[in-house]
Amino acid sequence: MKLVAKHKPIIERAIQAIHERTFFAQYPEHPSPKIYGEDADKNGREAFQNKVGKKFKELLQGDSDNWVGDEESPYMQDPLHITYPSYTPEELITKADKAFHQWRKIKADLRAAILVESLERVKNRFFEIAYATMHTTGQGYMMAFQASGPHAADRALEAIAMGYEELTRFPESVVWDKPMGKYNLKLAKEWRAIAKGIGVVIGCSTFPTWNSVPGMYASLVTGNPVIIKPHPGAILPIAIFVAELQKILKEEGLDPNICQLGVDSFSNMITKELAEDNRVKVIDYTGNSAFGDYLEGLKGKFVFTEKTGVNSAIIDSAEDIDKVIGNLAFSLSLYSGQMCTAPQNFYIPASGIKTPNGVVSFDEFAQKFADNIKGLVANPKAGPFVLGAIQNKNTCTRVEKFSSGTGKVWLSSGEVENPMFKNARTATPLVLEVDAQDTAAFSQELFGPIALLIKTKNTAQSVALAKEMALAHGAISCAAYSTDDETKEMIADEMSLAATPVSFNLTGGIYVNQHAGFSDFHVTGGNPAGNASFTNPEYVIKRFTWVGFREPVK
Amino acid sequence: MKLVAKHKPIIERAIQAIHERTFFAQYPEHPSPKIYGEDADKNGREAFQNKVGKKFKELLQGDSDNWVGDEESPYMQDPLHITYPSYTPEELITKADKAFHQWRKIKADLRAAILVESLERVKNRFFEIAYATMHTTGQGYMMAFQASGPHAADRALEAIAMGYEELTRFPESVVWDKPMGKYNLKLAKEWRAIAKGIGVVIGCSTFPTWNSVPGMYASLVTGNPVIIKPHPGAILPIAIFVAELQKILKEEGLDPNICQLGVDSFSNMITKELAEDNRVKVIDYTGNSAFGDYLEGLKGKFVFTEKTGVNSAIIDSAEDIDKVIGNLAFSLSLYSGQMCTAPQNFYIPASGIKTPNGVVSFDEFAQKFADNIKGLVANPKAGPFVLGAIQNKNTCTRVEKFSSGTGKVWLSSGEVENPMFKNARTATPLVLEVDAQDTAAFSQELFGPIALLIKTKNTAQSVALAKEMALAHGAISCAAYSTDDETKEMIADEMSLAATPVSFNLTGGIYVNQHAGFSDFHVTGGNPAGNASFTNPEYVIKRFTWVGFREPVK
Repeated sequence: MKLVAKHKPIIERAIQAIHERTFFAQYPEHPSPKIYGEDADKNGREAFQNKVGKKFKELLQGDSDNWVGDEESPYMQDPLHITYPSYTPEELITKADKAFHQWRKIKADLRAAILVESLERVKNRFFEIAYATMHTTGQGYMMAFQASGPHAADRALEAIAMGYEELTRFPESVVWDKPMGKYNLKLAKEWRAIAKGIGVVIGCSTFPTWNSVPGMYASLVTGNPVIIKPHPGAILPIAIFVAELQKILKEEGLDPNICQLGVDSFSNMITKELAEDNRVKVIDYTGNSAFGDYLEGLKGKFVFTEKTGVNSAIIDSAEDIDKVIGNLAFSLSLYSGQMCTAPQNFYIPASGIKTPNGVVSFDEFAQKFADNIKGLVANPKAGPFVLGAIQNKNTCTRVEKFSSGTGKVWLSSGEVENPMFKNARTATPLVLEVDAQDTAAFSQELFGPIALLIKTKNTAQSVALAKEMALAHGAISCAAYSTDDETKEMIADEMSLAATPVSFNLTGGIYVNQHAGFSDFHVTGGNPAGNASFTNPEYVIKRFTWVGFREPVK
Repeated sequence: MKLVAKHKPIIERAIQAIHERTFFAQYPEHPSPKIYGEDADKNGREAFQNKVGKKFKELLQGDSDNWVGDEESPYMQDPLHITYPSYTPEELITKADKAFHQWRKIKADLRAAILVESLERVKNRFFEIAYATMHTTGQGYMMAFQASGPHAADRALEAIAMGYEELTRFPESVVWDKPMGKYNLKLAKEWRAIAKGIGVVIGCSTFPTWNSVPGMYASLVTGNPVIIKPHPGAILPIAIFVAELQKILKEEGLDPNICQLGVDSFSNMITKELAEDNRVKVIDYTGNSAFGDYLEGLKGKFVFTEKTGVNSAIIDSAEDIDKVIGNLAFSLSLYSGQMCTAPQNFYIPASGIKTPNGVVSFDEFAQKFADNIKGLVANPKAGPFVLGAIQNKNTCTRVEKFSSGTGKVWLSSGEVENPMFKNARTATPLVLEVDAQDTAAFSQELFGPIALLIKTKNTAQSVALAKEMALAHGAISCAAYSTDDETKEMIADEMSLAATPVSFNLTGGIYVNQHAGFSDFHVTGGNPAGNASFTNPEYVIKRFTWVGFREPVK
């Protein structure tokens, strides 16, 4: 129980942060030597390099005859040749089922403390995870460090804290004492939070830890054993999280199979078999909508999804159009548009954008936007690092496909030279103009560095289209620019009915892509982009059942 | 805003009660003249009698050319000839959609206060509602008063309080202030709880208010307009709730269509058309499993169900077997087994029940149980009032059907004479013996006064069967009798995995059928008996979406 005393302050502070929703971070986002140690970066890089071409032997979930691994680095376009032990769904589920009956009986405070301890240890491996993330997802170094390390750990801590709060929200037991006139009726009542059963977390290829650890820790803190099924293309970052947790579980005398890594390969995927097994009760998923819809339709499961969406930028008026363009160009370029929060559909009135210096015409905006991206891409100190590499070849194919025939090309996509990785797979942003009437062209997610500048009649139409797209196809973010309070309120109200959060007038060093732990609800759960919302209490409550017991007091 | 100040203490006290989970009641359950006034009962009876044979004209939801009403009194087996204005689903939904945009913009504290005010006014009509309930459901007077009046109002208040707590759980706005080294990044953030859309509450014939008001008030407090679709056989009790709420809405200058009554008739049911309309987002339902499963399967809806279940009594050992039998006989007889919490499957070991005075054999238990029921039924001061009348003729048919061929008949079903209503439709409990191997006989809900005494190998088998039934067919309650702590813990643990609450060793004036507001989770949501749980925070959270807005601080 030392761990409980050790980590109680962290958990209490995190619960407070969720309620305050002001800035809070347990894990510093800056990869600074002052914070993480002088050699942390070097050690992390070496630790990653030492894993390449070898078996990943840190897991404590039992022997396997079959080692698999399909990861390849988007920066080198070469396989990493790292292999992981693989198991059949039946083996994974049988072990999870056994571990379930141990884990569910562990008190919530110990469960939470064990989980926080795992994050504290993962912290020592943030740099290693950063390199592992770069060379599986193609993210730039800074994003790979932040998203897969501290930001992911903060989201995990958030899930632990939320779970702990809900588990302890009602008394464990009370005497229910009802006056009946001549006597009192007394019942000793007790409530238990009963875990639903085995959880499966299905990872994605672009954010292998950030999108997986919230579900993983939310299921675990509420007493469910978890099988992590990473994307075959991005395993190592989350494997390190799982390995660290398994080590602590073992130290605490518990079954490491409380959290298993269920690796598969592109040629032999096990996701459906896992998901459909009736012992699996909770599923967390990040990925395409078709598979997400299939999962949501499974009977008898509690399914949490983050699927695709069509994000919008609504540009009505601005104080400083150049700052607006700089901000949006960066948002689109960041990790080459491979973020679920990246803007895609830019709605601009045909009559232009009002500014204190006069109206900026549609064409003027489009030209400035294209020029700004061109400048960013061409800047050797920024371009390659902001853009990173393209995780999936299909994204390059999509960019090519849309490069002609869809609308006027304001900026063609090309490649960017990475000074460190000559063979990096890259694609710079493609900027197209389409008319508002051509809804088919912008009614789908075009994952990757593709921006559509949509010429609308006016801002009212811009908002109507952005709302319609969000309601029909989902949306995770909306950037809006307006200097008029009434227009802003109109945008907020309309987009709220499509359950889409709105970032107004972002300029400078803050981007619509960023959703902060302990503050921003990530995915609202209210439109087709997904049914789950990080940091919404529902995200943890659905993972357990309150069951009451009562008996007359003697 | 007078209402806000007036009712804030009630709401705050109710929130406190939900967290304490000890006894709390805002509305006294005893129909005492001291509490409710000397003439309250007489006035209520007359008010009900004055409604019979007439148009119900209290609703403020607009004219209708079509007045319908199929209610009949199970006590008189005669139609009540009360008619209600009827509307097409399109009319109801169009009006609700219009009212939505008014109601969702009302602040949560005013919404909550308006809703509490409606309960305070309904309080003055508890006796009228009691008679309306008797003559639609067949409940005895005392149950009709308590369940449809104070207990229902308490459950409604509970939903209001829970909703209010969740709506105000996070700050409306904050400044998010992130240190960036040389400067601080400041975002003004705001969050809004966005109602999902139109709610439809589908009532049942046996508990027309108790089972409907939680969903009704939970949807309303979170900003959703609601259409109440009562069971065609039990309209008047909930019509009074709706009418009182509409009056206050009008007084407050709001659209009474924020809460509409959508009456239909047996020959022209509108439920599916309402449920399937894509403007309807939230559905609350109490009733049979087939229709509940259909509703749960509808895409894009937030559905809360209470369906059927197979409740169990597990008898292992007892201090005083006669008290146990008295308690269980009453539980079965109360409202002739027409409660969703009534026990049905009684699991008794073939080797008998251990007591301090020796083992009570299976046959001895069965005989005593049958005798006790016989005594209760034959007691003219208790029998007719405890049993009430049978709401639906099909229940009598079911009792007849099972009266032979299923197993040994320990007690036949008959009729009981009601001194006040010579024509009452009644059926006294049928008690059958079946063997544990004959699972088909006890693997379904036999709604009504039917008890199956199931002879098991031992208590372990009793528990295994009760758990299996709950997992496969649902369960809302379980009564267990054991004097052994280890056995009790085994029962609690096993039944908890089937998400079934357990009442241990109830004797005297407290019954497994009773679930108390502000304390007992009614339906756990964890087995096929339903996906909703009264007083679980999920019950309100799913009715709205958190949407955030943010903008740099100037």
